[in-house]
Amino acid sequence: MSNWLLPESLADILPAEARRIEELRRNLLDLYRTYGFELVAPPLVEYIDSLLSGTGSALNLRTCKLIDQLSGRTMGVRADMTPQVSRIDAHLLNREGATRLCYCGSVLHARPSGLLSDRELLQIGAEIFGHAGVEADIEVLELALESVKRAGVKEARLDLNHPGVVRAIIDSDPALQGAEEAISELLSTKDIPAINDLPSTIAGVQPATVKALLDLASLYGGPEVIARARAVLPPLPTLLAGLDDLEILVRALPTHQFSIDLADMGSGYGYHSGVVFSIYAEGWHDALVKGGRYDGVGKAFGRSRPATGFSLDLRKLSAGLPPATIAKAIRAPWGTDAALVAALRQLRGDGEIVVQVLPGQPHRLDEFTVDRELVLDDGAWKVRAIQ
Amino acid sequence: MSNWLLPESLADILPAEARRIEELRRNLLDLYRTYGFELVAPPLVEYIDSLLSGTGSALNLRTCKLIDQLSGRTMGVRADMTPQVSRIDAHLLNREGATRLCYCGSVLHARPSGLLSDRELLQIGAEIFGHAGVEADIEVLELALESVKRAGVKEARLDLNHPGVVRAIIDSDPALQGAEEAISELLSTKDIPAINDLPSTIAGVQPATVKALLDLASLYGGPEVIARARAVLPPLPTLLAGLDDLEILVRALPTHQFSIDLADMGSGYGYHSGVVFSIYAEGWHDALVKGGRYDGVGKAFGRSRPATGFSLDLRKLSAGLPPATIAKAIRAPWGTDAALVAALRQLRGDGEIVVQVLPGQPHRLDEFTVDRELVLDDGAWKVRAIQ
Repeated sequence: MSNWLLPESLADILPAEARRIEELRRNLLDLYRTYGFELVAPPLVEYIDSLLSGTGSALNLRTCKLIDQLSGRTMGVRADMTPQVSRIDAHLLNREGATRLCYCGSVLHARPSGLLSDRELLQIGAEIFGHAGVEADIEVLELALESVKRAGVKEARLDLNHPGVVRAIIDSDPALQGAEEAISELLSTKDIPAINDLPSTIAGVQPATVKALLDLASLYGGPEVIARARAVLPPLPTLLAGLDDLEILVRALPTHQFSIDLADMGSGYGYHSGVVFSIYAEGWHDALVKGGRYDGVGKAFGRSRPATGFSLDLRKLSAGLPPATIAKAIRAPWGTDAALVAALRQLRGDGEIVVQVLPGQPHRLDEFTVDRELVLDDGAWKVRAIQ
Repeated sequence: MSNWLLPESLADILPAEARRIEELRRNLLDLYRTYGFELVAPPLVEYIDSLLSGTGSALNLRTCKLIDQLSGRTMGVRADMTPQVSRIDAHLLNREGATRLCYCGSVLHARPSGLLSDRELLQIGAEIFGHAGVEADIEVLELALESVKRAGVKEARLDLNHPGVVRAIIDSDPALQGAEEAISELLSTKDIPAINDLPSTIAGVQPATVKALLDLASLYGGPEVIARARAVLPPLPTLLAGLDDLEILVRALPTHQFSIDLADMGSGYGYHSGVVFSIYAEGWHDALVKGGRYDGVGKAFGRSRPATGFSLDLRKLSAGLPPATIAKAIRAPWGTDAALVAALRQLRGDGEIVVQVLPGQPHRLDEFTVDRELVLDDGAWKVRAIQ
């Protein structure tokens, strides 16, 4: 009799928490709407070729596969909605110029991304397609910061980065071709001994590359990191372009505190091509929001478009917030007489929560607190406080 | 280059339609809340044993299966949320007395249920657990009717039924044991020749059973069907109890028009135990809402509780409604000067949709109509109509 056991890292969301997640969802979708982001809803499953187009092996490993009974082809349950929304922009809407899209839906991971992570996320996000300029990055970054603020998150910290910097160094050394993921792992864990040891693990690595990677591992801190990087890293064109992008963004948002870690390529799905960012806050053990530029994902769908955006998991966001406030409700007796039915209709029409007590039933509520009751007083139905 | 092709019977929902579905979702969840229904969110996938507990083979065939990478056990993507919510009531909340729960989430079908059906549904529903009396059925029925009314559906038609009536006749004849699904199919298609022919296809069927099945096939119409059924059908105790249930409900809701078809066991997932209902309306080729009583589903989770409720597919509901109204938006130039930023913040805070035009970008919107623009007039940012 263990039919009620759920698989590991999957959970039911119970009343008070489910309602708070619903409120966050509405609050954020309404925010994106006021910026002119249009809502889309891609399907829960699609062919794996389409779902993984333009993404890396991390997303593939995280995607649950199933066989389509109609075509016999392999489908995947989406593990990330961003490439789907990119497909909608590139192929379905097929507009010229800038397109702002937002979305909210469940995504599933084959394995949890961390010890404390769930395998089901409620992903909400906003993306701007078709504009390569920094203006789109600024709007997206502002909206991401405003999202966590609206949710009541205090003291959010913004991490900025550009995977093009590390990539330029890797690409400059023929010995490192194909080792991008391994190098990225060494850098993100700041594994100095392993970097020093690279010439013995990968044949032919140049000493200048090892030095650049060691320098990268210490290039973190405030915006001054950009100038330090210009001074110590090799002047490769794409590396310098990446530093320029970072500098423009830091200058465009002077009121925000940034921290920069040039060694971190981001733990995303390998589709980012420009500035990437993460928002961290106390109460959450890893990044609350992830975003950045990913020009070119649409290429796999026949139309390469600039793209920048962010997303977050509403369930994770809610789990770290203080307990939700409990709504107040009115208790009413069961009955079908016209005056009672009219009183119920009036109260509910005004947005009041009125719970009719079913005959002979005790009742307990987690989502509401009953603080008033509807009673027949001198021939009329009236609401009064419960003593 | 066909990466953008979606599997058959799966679709992207584009801006104006996605926004309308979101509005319907909010409208209905708010309605259920005013009746005191608490919101829950079961997981998208769970072990197949749990997902299919207490249900029939129809739900099994409709459920997509996948292997849990953590346990090696078979999981299913939910094809119906009702049994999940029943599990939450029975095991997780574990309350005494009546519990009202509502939910909204994506469900997936391995095959479409009809030629025009999608395989992904956005199921929304409300259920009352723990109360066996007709009061719960009345509340659920009223709420189902109010749901379609709120959505703007005109002239909804309510079909009432009780699968216990057909089941009593099948159970009374030993020759029909195990043939419930076949008989139910013959009755729902009113296949008179095949019913007449039963003695030659199933050995030992009693002539009285064949007569009762033939009578059932003509027992449809208004509430008067209940009296006709009492006159012609065999007086089996469970059959009479089913007719009593129908009669109580019809009498309790005198202002509604009912149609009754005693031969139809409902096209549900075989878990209904009492009165079942469907709501039909012009513009939808099959039932818009399905509901009814399903006492005993919780038994598989260790706690048998009375239960009654309904659900509907928000995507199907939206698809049959007239085109959604398009919201009005304000166009604003790109810029980061403090006065413009303040004006944008003020307008958006008031709920206005303000789309900043990114430099050099044409733009087209499906979800909004731009009818005003934000302009610098005499040193101040003002909204004016676009000529």
